[in-house]
Amino acid sequence: MNAFDELAQALEILPNIGTKSAQRIAYYLLQHNREGTEHLIQCLENALKQVKHCRLCNTFCEHDICDLCADQTRDQSQLMIVQMPLDISILESANCHQGLYFVLMGSIQPLQNMDLNSIAIKKLLNRLHEGDVKEIIIATNFNAEGEATAFILQEILKKLPFKVTRLARGMPLGSELEYTDLGTLAQSFYERTPIGKEK
Amino acid sequence: MNAFDELAQALEILPNIGTKSAQRIAYYLLQHNREGTEHLIQCLENALKQVKHCRLCNTFCEHDICDLCADQTRDQSQLMIVQMPLDISILESANCHQGLYFVLMGSIQPLQNMDLNSIAIKKLLNRLHEGDVKEIIIATNFNAEGEATAFILQEILKKLPFKVTRLARGMPLGSELEYTDLGTLAQSFYERTPIGKEK
Repeated sequence: MNAFDELAQALEILPNIGTKSAQRIAYYLLQHNREGTEHLIQCLENALKQVKHCRLCNTFCEHDICDLCADQTRDQSQLMIVQMPLDISILESANCHQGLYFVLMGSIQPLQNMDLNSIAIKKLLNRLHEGDVKEIIIATNFNAEGEATAFILQEILKKLPFKVTRLARGMPLGSELEYTDLGTLAQSFYERTPIGKEK
Repeated sequence: MNAFDELAQALEILPNIGTKSAQRIAYYLLQHNREGTEHLIQCLENALKQVKHCRLCNTFCEHDICDLCADQTRDQSQLMIVQMPLDISILESANCHQGLYFVLMGSIQPLQNMDLNSIAIKKLLNRLHEGDVKEIIIATNFNAEGEATAFILQEILKKLPFKVTRLARGMPLGSELEYTDLGTLAQSFYERTPIGKEK
């Protein structure tokens, strides 16, 4: 196989990129943007080398602990659980949550195998033993994967001595956190409701 | 800027990838496919190093001359002009053209500046001085860019002593070569019509 075809095939690892699109991208890179491609190679290498996970919240991070976890002014008693690092950015923009985060780095796939290894459960339980968490706020998406993840978390957490809440269902069903407008997001934070225990 | 953000920004050079998609790709690569990413880096580097242009037909090629141009069994009198290397693959699959190719590596943008430098005109004219070309078959796309390119080529070529033809307009207007079914494509080859000169 020649270098062009090999590149096109390698590009198919990108999410939502099929054979045709991969060929078009390879053509574009080699024909119109060799300089950008060299920069991209550099950035991929750097990211592979430098990007690890925060020891506490599991988000992408280049040090042992991320800036948010290291910030002593944040409310140490509230821990919000999200699926992806990008969810933290949007929640920080909504400016409603003053506590800390934990990133699952994935979600339960209810239509496949409900595999618990697709989310960082063990690291979450270790995290809960450290520090002064009192309330856990589940902020997974409101689609099938997010709902399944929230359910599993609720089942696991109800045995533990934490208040567990979830973002209010003011958000439209089927939506994803990342694409929600900030007002709706903040409202659903303020109206979060206790779950998993008798009132 | 941290390595993750730098990677996401570098990924925005990919065609049709915006800020959000770039962040998602970066997340996917770092979280779910570091091995594939390493392979991708290798393939990008190899392709940048090895992929050049065929001296004769201008397609992507790792040697001085590509396999098709080196094939002496092809009809040396017919030269088909296409926009992109991928167009050659689809035409070869249609199995109608026994001659050679020339790849413009782009098209005229009629809505921007009609810049002639976006296609390899000079290399095409040099190519026509070499070898035994008698007929030039214009096989640009049938959308606005392809039509403009065909028009420019026709204007340039009508001063030269070649028979100039174009793929028949049996193809639906607005379509692109790459996505055409093979039957329609072959039919439009067989019905190609002379242009640019009085009959």
